[in-house]
Amino acid sequence: MSIRKLAVIGVGLIGGSLARALRAAGQVDEIIGCGRSRDNLDKAVELGVIDSYSQDIGKAVEDADMIFLAIPLGAMRDAFDSMKGYLAGNAVITDGGSVKGSVIADCEAVFGEILPNFVPGHPIAGTEKNGVESSFAELYQNRRVILTPVSQTDESAIARVHAMWRYCGAEINRMSPVDHDRVLAATSHLPHMLAFALVDMLSRVDYEEDIFKYAAGGFRDFTRIASSNPVMWRDICIANKDAVASLVESYADEMMDLARAIREDDIDTLTRMFMNAKKHRDAFIDGV
Amino acid sequence: MSIRKLAVIGVGLIGGSLARALRAAGQVDEIIGCGRSRDNLDKAVELGVIDSYSQDIGKAVEDADMIFLAIPLGAMRDAFDSMKGYLAGNAVITDGGSVKGSVIADCEAVFGEILPNFVPGHPIAGTEKNGVESSFAELYQNRRVILTPVSQTDESAIARVHAMWRYCGAEINRMSPVDHDRVLAATSHLPHMLAFALVDMLSRVDYEEDIFKYAAGGFRDFTRIASSNPVMWRDICIANKDAVASLVESYADEMMDLARAIREDDIDTLTRMFMNAKKHRDAFIDGV
Repeated sequence: MSIRKLAVIGVGLIGGSLARALRAAGQVDEIIGCGRSRDNLDKAVELGVIDSYSQDIGKAVEDADMIFLAIPLGAMRDAFDSMKGYLAGNAVITDGGSVKGSVIADCEAVFGEILPNFVPGHPIAGTEKNGVESSFAELYQNRRVILTPVSQTDESAIARVHAMWRYCGAEINRMSPVDHDRVLAATSHLPHMLAFALVDMLSRVDYEEDIFKYAAGGFRDFTRIASSNPVMWRDICIANKDAVASLVESYADEMMDLARAIREDDIDTLTRMFMNAKKHRDAFIDGV
Repeated sequence: MSIRKLAVIGVGLIGGSLARALRAAGQVDEIIGCGRSRDNLDKAVELGVIDSYSQDIGKAVEDADMIFLAIPLGAMRDAFDSMKGYLAGNAVITDGGSVKGSVIADCEAVFGEILPNFVPGHPIAGTEKNGVESSFAELYQNRRVILTPVSQTDESAIARVHAMWRYCGAEINRMSPVDHDRVLAATSHLPHMLAFALVDMLSRVDYEEDIFKYAAGGFRDFTRIASSNPVMWRDICIANKDAVASLVESYADEMMDLARAIREDDIDTLTRMFMNAKKHRDAFIDGV
């Protein structure tokens, strides 16, 4: 048993799926949950995702040798604060936050140092669903998990978190927090902003009903991520402010160039842009 | 047999699928194809999608009672020009162009009037694939086809085109060309622009490889339409210039507002925007 007692702070899709996967792999002895919704925690016990729960973070973590924070980025600092003084000497902490710089800063703000046993991480997996009922043991199978340890991070703590994710079927990569936040801003945070902004903008035009009536598959695919959790994404924006805002600004410039090219019948620019996009999309994404 | 001889100008996904659907429904006696690629036309004969072909549009249409133009918008005017003088008295013409105003203008420019037997149309269906091999009889099943006749259009011609699409399993709606072009600019043309522009922009950053390496499902869905045919989309931009450029400009403004909100920690604006987007996406698209 690689983990004796796992504390899952936030038993939703991400936290619940980790619990299920480790249970399925036979790599955890006991799982305690923690969260704000008692209904969700009761459901998690009922589903066998966790063995028990406490809504007091201190109590939930005090005896755990592995702690997984699967809560919105805006809740991280309070969570660190609530576990301060309750951590066991052998406890390893990791998280699933979509931005790493802010979580690391939260840890440092609370503890006065970046805890050597804190291994910042980010599983690149998820759906638009929320809650423990949407969790499943296979969520991390063949998905990437990025770990972003810093120079202070203990290598044995990294190894334990690495092993935990391997048991879930994930492929683990290491990056610096800055590189992670820059890459994720482009691949994940910006596309979510674009989808939210598009649906928001179209909801305000006077022919909105026709828009959704005649929306075809492309529009559905394109806007699916606009059904994601608004609070989670608001937190991500704020936590990764510089990288996301810069990309949104660059994208606004790209839009102005595009509008100009369309208005001026600039066929060369349009052809070059669309062909380049198709080439890269086809090459990197294997046509799926 | 509701159609004696169907001429399909452009035997790709759209044209080939109409031919297959009408054949499967037993509603066409003979199908002649026309197109630029002899390889594609040979393949279409081999697959039984068309009975024969001519690369001369005049020859292809001269004996047809139904003509379907399934070619890029930029090729419409030449196609009208090439069929001038060869049309049978009972010939009905319709098309599959994604912009209606420009096709109607092309018809008028060539014939000096909007032909009463021309019924502008647009099947809201398609994939990112091209060529006759990607065509299939079920493409239009339960999909919408928008017809945009004008005051000059002959009602019996509209009825024949309506019946043709019904035999393909489609649901037919009528709109004015202007309304069509405005709605499609929002639901289809703008999202394609956003996806092309995003992939184009990201292909130019210095961490491009990491971007595609760590791209998850949301990014794949979001950028799928950037694999679409660049020439077709360039033509659509130009043909629906005013509506598309206006939306792209509005979207650039929306991006600037968003960037400002992120930089200023304007949590209220972000929450409102994301919640409104989620509400509308969930309500109109039934969570798929």
